[in-house]
Amino acid sequence: MHQLILNNFALHVALAPHEQEQALAFFQLREVKKRTWLLHAGKNGRYIYFVKSGCLRMLYTDKSGEEHNIGFYPENWWVCDIVSFFNEKPASNAIQTLENSEVYYISLPQLETLFQTIPKFERFFRILTQNGFELYQRRITSQLYKSAEERYLEFRKCHPGLEQRIAQKHIASYLGITPAFLSMMRKESRV
Amino acid sequence: MHQLILNNFALHVALAPHEQEQALAFFQLREVKKRTWLLHAGKNGRYIYFVKSGCLRMLYTDKSGEEHNIGFYPENWWVCDIVSFFNEKPASNAIQTLENSEVYYISLPQLETLFQTIPKFERFFRILTQNGFELYQRRITSQLYKSAEERYLEFRKCHPGLEQRIAQKHIASYLGITPAFLSMMRKESRV
Repeated sequence: MHQLILNNFALHVALAPHEQEQALAFFQLREVKKRTWLLHAGKNGRYIYFVKSGCLRMLYTDKSGEEHNIGFYPENWWVCDIVSFFNEKPASNAIQTLENSEVYYISLPQLETLFQTIPKFERFFRILTQNGFELYQRRITSQLYKSAEERYLEFRKCHPGLEQRIAQKHIASYLGITPAFLSMMRKESRV
Repeated sequence: MHQLILNNFALHVALAPHEQEQALAFFQLREVKKRTWLLHAGKNGRYIYFVKSGCLRMLYTDKSGEEHNIGFYPENWWVCDIVSFFNEKPASNAIQTLENSEVYYISLPQLETLFQTIPKFERFFRILTQNGFELYQRRITSQLYKSAEERYLEFRKCHPGLEQRIAQKHIASYLGITPAFLSMMRKESRV
């Protein structure tokens, strides 16, 4: 039942069976309907989420009210506004479900207790933070220095099959282009 | 002699005196002349640096060969291309000294041994990675959504006194403006 998250832990730390059970007890699991806000910009990001099923997005809303998708988080991905969560301050970004989803979540006090109980998790979340950093850096560098076509191919490589699951407008917003331009690129890439 | 780095450790982890000595043994210290490249883009970032004195910069060089300063790292700052260092792959960014500097440095194998010897350092470097993430995120968000004036004031707040130590062209490159525009802003902010 909890195999997906246990396999995910196993990517970076080796846990004994009793540690797996201990760790799981710190997480809660909930079902979330499509288009639910799990974090509003300006509020404190109180949880780190692990996606068991479904798909979430993180987005930035600029001063003019326009949304910019920062990333998509389908099953087996972790998502949180790292800066807000660990520093307990208002989030720059928001998090919303794009599909009916099941998510595990953990609060900062629970996470600190988990670190004390099973110190290996310091390592796990250090690596997760590094990976988040890498994604974010790649995202920014792509936005600044790569063409829309290159960004589109990167997105498809990073998330095989996801393109069929989420609205065109969300992918376009992630790529920083109009839906019409995305549609044109899609047609061309089929050739 | 090593008080600056020990005080820096103490910001996030409590070390017994024998642990302080143990930890220091994993770091090496070197003097570096002004304008020395500590990391070239495309090479693996083999070290994390802690600046004891002097000042470093991290920069991105775009396809047209133009340099974009990502950040400045004077005494008491840590600097490394996090993605390159932890994943042992070519760096997107380069690191150069802007002044004659003294830096502590540690390699990934040494760091892994330090984690085994004093597991508290997992926590220290997790927090350091989070702080790096925050800086990077703030840098990007500022670049996209704030005015040059706001960015200039943020820079002065983050690095009091640094403006007098480094060349105008480097600050302008960090702010994403021309040196002439920076000079104009400086005159206005004196009023």
